[in-house]
Amino acid sequence: MKIGILGATGAVGRQMLECIEERNINAEEIRLFASEKSKGKTMMYKGQELVIDVADAENLKGLDYVLGAVSNAMSKYYRPLIKEAGAVYIDNSSAFRLEDDVPLVVPQINGEDALKHNGIIANPNCSTIITMMALAPIARISPIKTLTATTFQAVSGAGINGFYELEEQIEQVKNNEPVTPKVFPAQIAFNCIAEIGSYNDNGYTTEEMKMQNEGRKILHLPDLKVTCTCVRVPVYRSHSISAAFETEQFVSIEDAEKAVAAFEGDKLVKDHVPQPIETSNQDIVHVGRIRYDLTRDNALTLWCCGDQIRKGAATNAVEIMEYLENH
Amino acid sequence: MKIGILGATGAVGRQMLECIEERNINAEEIRLFASEKSKGKTMMYKGQELVIDVADAENLKGLDYVLGAVSNAMSKYYRPLIKEAGAVYIDNSSAFRLEDDVPLVVPQINGEDALKHNGIIANPNCSTIITMMALAPIARISPIKTLTATTFQAVSGAGINGFYELEEQIEQVKNNEPVTPKVFPAQIAFNCIAEIGSYNDNGYTTEEMKMQNEGRKILHLPDLKVTCTCVRVPVYRSHSISAAFETEQFVSIEDAEKAVAAFEGDKLVKDHVPQPIETSNQDIVHVGRIRYDLTRDNALTLWCCGDQIRKGAATNAVEIMEYLENH
Repeated sequence: MKIGILGATGAVGRQMLECIEERNINAEEIRLFASEKSKGKTMMYKGQELVIDVADAENLKGLDYVLGAVSNAMSKYYRPLIKEAGAVYIDNSSAFRLEDDVPLVVPQINGEDALKHNGIIANPNCSTIITMMALAPIARISPIKTLTATTFQAVSGAGINGFYELEEQIEQVKNNEPVTPKVFPAQIAFNCIAEIGSYNDNGYTTEEMKMQNEGRKILHLPDLKVTCTCVRVPVYRSHSISAAFETEQFVSIEDAEKAVAAFEGDKLVKDHVPQPIETSNQDIVHVGRIRYDLTRDNALTLWCCGDQIRKGAATNAVEIMEYLENH
Repeated sequence: MKIGILGATGAVGRQMLECIEERNINAEEIRLFASEKSKGKTMMYKGQELVIDVADAENLKGLDYVLGAVSNAMSKYYRPLIKEAGAVYIDNSSAFRLEDDVPLVVPQINGEDALKHNGIIANPNCSTIITMMALAPIARISPIKTLTATTFQAVSGAGINGFYELEEQIEQVKNNEPVTPKVFPAQIAFNCIAEIGSYNDNGYTTEEMKMQNEGRKILHLPDLKVTCTCVRVPVYRSHSISAAFETEQFVSIEDAEKAVAAFEGDKLVKDHVPQPIETSNQDIVHVGRIRYDLTRDNALTLWCCGDQIRKGAATNAVEIMEYLENH
């Protein structure tokens, strides 16, 4: 199996390479691609230095899979080149996620969709993956009709510079220096910012609408209605989500807990609350605090956390590739 | 006017004294009360040193108002002594909030309830005050039927030691030292903890149930149903709330915004998102991101922030006292 990583030097690209090594994937060759400024630099893989190149029609040839962790614009640019090269493109950008003939896949939930691909499979939004991992086992008992979600998103969801920005601002606050936001629209140290992405006409952000639009496609529930508020919080890694959701029929807390506990990739946490520091640097989504929604019948609330760079991005992409290999 | 402050050395008690000074309240005398270990220490008020004492039947005599910022147990102990002394007790504890003959008051919302007191008026829970300040103007257009709320609560909501704990843990994480939670049930630095208060049988915490039980009383909506998730976040000061709520009749975004903008104590923020660092150390609740709930008719969502030590506690108590003086 020959694998290319597009955007190998970013937070998600680096994690993809790590995941491939960790999971001991049988890769005959790995080619790392990034922008011109990284050309010639190296990254370590199984004790060897891999040299980074800029992707083009030539060096994409012969690859079986390309895992993409680049911007929408770059993804649009590379899609035809990857197709031409004959590789399957597993794309972490949001450029093609809602296209009818592009499967949008979380392997544990709708892995079989991946088999119907036409050369490209989209990796969903990070908060959406983590939330759907918590909801999917319950949706299998009774379909989910509506979801009200509020996210607590880590700074590294904005890439490695989000991480550095929080680190820098913590020092600036401590030293009474002026705080200089660059990555986020305001100070993130000791603050919460209820604005991720740009605004749609309905007042929701692009990030917030992904929970509905991608959630529908992943769960195969085209009528699912979602209202979402996405909030950046001063957490380095792992997103958390507070979710309240209605099911078509009544689902008991006990049945919901059993389903979550039995679902591959989930861990039911009962003896304490799931926390983002506990889910960081690993692949499992932690789900807890499953309660009856007090405002309506046939509804539950829960709290879940997951590593948005791993299960929310890199791991999920690698799992899609594994799914294709094994089916 | 002679005023006593019970629990004067805590975060809320200190803020009460500051509020009285700031608002230039015509106080003939202020007596500060705290525990034995603070006896004889002093606090500054208008450039003068006030000596702290332990409250008893004797030194409570002659006071017109006692503002309380002590535990439920201490509040229960002092209530009869304050009554005996003939002072009106404005109590920040949760000990008496739900008693039928104890008004639970946010002056801008239900100030008139304070006039019916029998010697004691309760100051509501901090997150509840801030949320109700955002909802009340909209509830006046059409009553609110249900509320789904997720809170982002600052560490100083747990008192001054919550503040120090975050500060200390930030350093511990930076220096790769073990993190030692004392105030909170887990590490709060770079983390979110969806557990505030103790658990009820229904799986909700005491803090979460306050939003429903106190919200009903403040808004005069005994049938209001609330489902709430309370989360501690690494923010020093000011709570934020993500709220989705149904109204009996349709309320347009425009009408909701107008009502919030016109409501005393609220500020409608449209050009950016309300943020806890912006609402800290002042008394106004910031409300923004008013949107239609996408899951149902006659429902809105919003995001609000307010200083939980000021409007969420000390300022609100002082405002209750001012309301009684002016009516």
